[in-house]
Amino acid sequence: MADPVFELHRGGKMVVQSTVPLSTREDLSLAYTPGVALVCEAIAADPTLADHYTWVGHTVAVVTDGSAVLGLGNIGPRAAMPVMEGKAVLFKQFGGVDAVPLCLDTQDSDEIVRIVAALAPSFGGINLEDIAAPRCFEIERRLDELLPIPVFHDDQHGTAIVVLAALRNTAALLSRRLADLRVVVVGAGAAGSAVTRTLRSGGVADIVVCDSRGVLHSGRDDLNREKASLLATTNPRGVTGGVAEALSGADVLIGVSGGAIDESAVAGMTPGGAIFALANPTPEVHPTVAARHARVVGTGRSDFPNQINNVLAFPGVFRGALDARATRITEGMKLAAAEAIASVVADALTADAVVPSPLDPRVAPAVAAAVAEAARRDGVCRATASVPD
Amino acid sequence: MADPVFELHRGGKMVVQSTVPLSTREDLSLAYTPGVALVCEAIAADPTLADHYTWVGHTVAVVTDGSAVLGLGNIGPRAAMPVMEGKAVLFKQFGGVDAVPLCLDTQDSDEIVRIVAALAPSFGGINLEDIAAPRCFEIERRLDELLPIPVFHDDQHGTAIVVLAALRNTAALLSRRLADLRVVVVGAGAAGSAVTRTLRSGGVADIVVCDSRGVLHSGRDDLNREKASLLATTNPRGVTGGVAEALSGADVLIGVSGGAIDESAVAGMTPGGAIFALANPTPEVHPTVAARHARVVGTGRSDFPNQINNVLAFPGVFRGALDARATRITEGMKLAAAEAIASVVADALTADAVVPSPLDPRVAPAVAAAVAEAARRDGVCRATASVPD
Repeated sequence: MADPVFELHRGGKMVVQSTVPLSTREDLSLAYTPGVALVCEAIAADPTLADHYTWVGHTVAVVTDGSAVLGLGNIGPRAAMPVMEGKAVLFKQFGGVDAVPLCLDTQDSDEIVRIVAALAPSFGGINLEDIAAPRCFEIERRLDELLPIPVFHDDQHGTAIVVLAALRNTAALLSRRLADLRVVVVGAGAAGSAVTRTLRSGGVADIVVCDSRGVLHSGRDDLNREKASLLATTNPRGVTGGVAEALSGADVLIGVSGGAIDESAVAGMTPGGAIFALANPTPEVHPTVAARHARVVGTGRSDFPNQINNVLAFPGVFRGALDARATRITEGMKLAAAEAIASVVADALTADAVVPSPLDPRVAPAVAAAVAEAARRDGVCRATASVPD
Repeated sequence: MADPVFELHRGGKMVVQSTVPLSTREDLSLAYTPGVALVCEAIAADPTLADHYTWVGHTVAVVTDGSAVLGLGNIGPRAAMPVMEGKAVLFKQFGGVDAVPLCLDTQDSDEIVRIVAALAPSFGGINLEDIAAPRCFEIERRLDELLPIPVFHDDQHGTAIVVLAALRNTAALLSRRLADLRVVVVGAGAAGSAVTRTLRSGGVADIVVCDSRGVLHSGRDDLNREKASLLATTNPRGVTGGVAEALSGADVLIGVSGGAIDESAVAGMTPGGAIFALANPTPEVHPTVAARHARVVGTGRSDFPNQINNVLAFPGVFRGALDARATRITEGMKLAAAEAIASVVADALTADAVVPSPLDPRVAPAVAAAVAEAARRDGVCRATASVPD
């Protein structure tokens, strides 16, 4: 695989392109001086005009510090660039969103917040990417509070949205209600935390979360702020112990840890449920093993059914947020995105297709429309100058 | 003009474009996970591979703080965006350089330096733009020292390069040597300072610089650090007084101040010389007036002959610097750029064409080749992994 991969990556995966003619003096006098000064003056008088007369209204920054890239870990900003470029071209391909990859040469939270805040006038949204937990929580929270544009840490919320979509359709397939499912989330990092919160918002009542030391429960005295906060809305039955104890009698396992889970633990689940083992490239439970204990099996991989791929979410989420001129991504917008993803395949549900293919062209427009509508419902849309078409 | 300008600017002037296919699962597995991880790992092991396998090797940031935009002044980052987008599309059109406009929401020099330094892994070069003097000098100097990639404040050096090109051809037309010309630079801001330094490097021996209070001379006790430094290599005859005294007997006037210069002062110049009055849209001396006192007349405007337009320099300068993997822009590279621009029209010199048209397609390739060669001569090229074609 190495050769075709490197061949494809030669020179990178993206370019910028002018959308205006630049061939004559007249062209230059409109697109650049002296004409451009009129546009600058108009925006200086009414900053909301930047949405209409610059590329800011359709452009997001894909920002990383290179600290948690794929499963590769802390490989730094230069080595992270191929992933961020990949993200940028997926934004364009599926959401029609222009995206600029920015890899920062700092892993200091305060500095990252200041840098992204200073860059905000140049973009219509900020997609945070591959920033290690627990720093990612604080960085996203502070930027979300500071900035008048949407901030979205995809490793958290993109994953969470697609997992909720999968679980909605799984529940429908199993003729169960989300509120009646026992769900175990193995992993309490960026993805595990967001998956848990979004499933709770989406109506799942009984979630037990495990980190590398076992179940999060009230007897633990080693929980950081994020984990303590997770515990406050999970583990209603007061489960203690490890992954095996958590899985005993569970309907759904969601693996977002990267660590292998023994078949003996999985065997304790209630038969006929679901296992989503999302670690890449090695799922926490191999799909063949998982299929012995669950009816619905999903992974993060493209070579097995039910791929839980963030590309189902982020292009449509930002397209919808930009279209609605949303100032932030609300919980309601995330739930609407999950519902839209699920609805694309709801009429033809099978155990092998509880989520659409990442290439399904119906997904992003459906997500965008649902997200934009939710933004309006939640009242988070910026007022903007009215400009004639 | 307003309507066609706003019509052209609707939605901005640029987009990003993928250069790789993204239609099949196989495409995704090469451009994104799992394939992309191989490229990340290769760059983590040898960071110079980023030049080959990401877009960084052909991409620059166009960075402003919105403090000195065109002649509009301190209009801030949002209102500056149309100019930065314009710059970006000119980079692409003339130099084949991909450029990303970044308008920063801070005018603090320390913070700008930290932000740009943190962004550096994402770009092959930094084009600073429309940052007010004297802050621009410190910001450029510190970034030039800090970063392993070229940093170029176009308002300074782009202007200086094109002025030197114009003056070289003017001297040839007048059968004079640069070293024998008396030159007066009116304006000691970003452009005036850089023009003065580059003309000195280019061989002009007798330059008198004026700021808004008159000639820079050793009796002045109000000179900031930059102006004191300029004085150290100018005013060899110890001229004092105002612009009129400076122009008395001068061969060349270069106006980069924006303020009008009286015809009575211009009338004191030696007849048959040159006047370049670069203020936009209102030249310091109107070309009709200037023509009464000089043989060669240039402005910054497209509707008069001899337009001194930075687009003659920056696309080729960065194309050449990127091609050579230069770590900085040396004085030798600037002089080579000026010589290349001048040489394009050297065989067909007339008083109305001492510089090429901004649209002349021969210019950027000539500049790029000369700049890359000068970078190699000056020994500022990064070592890079050898990658087979």
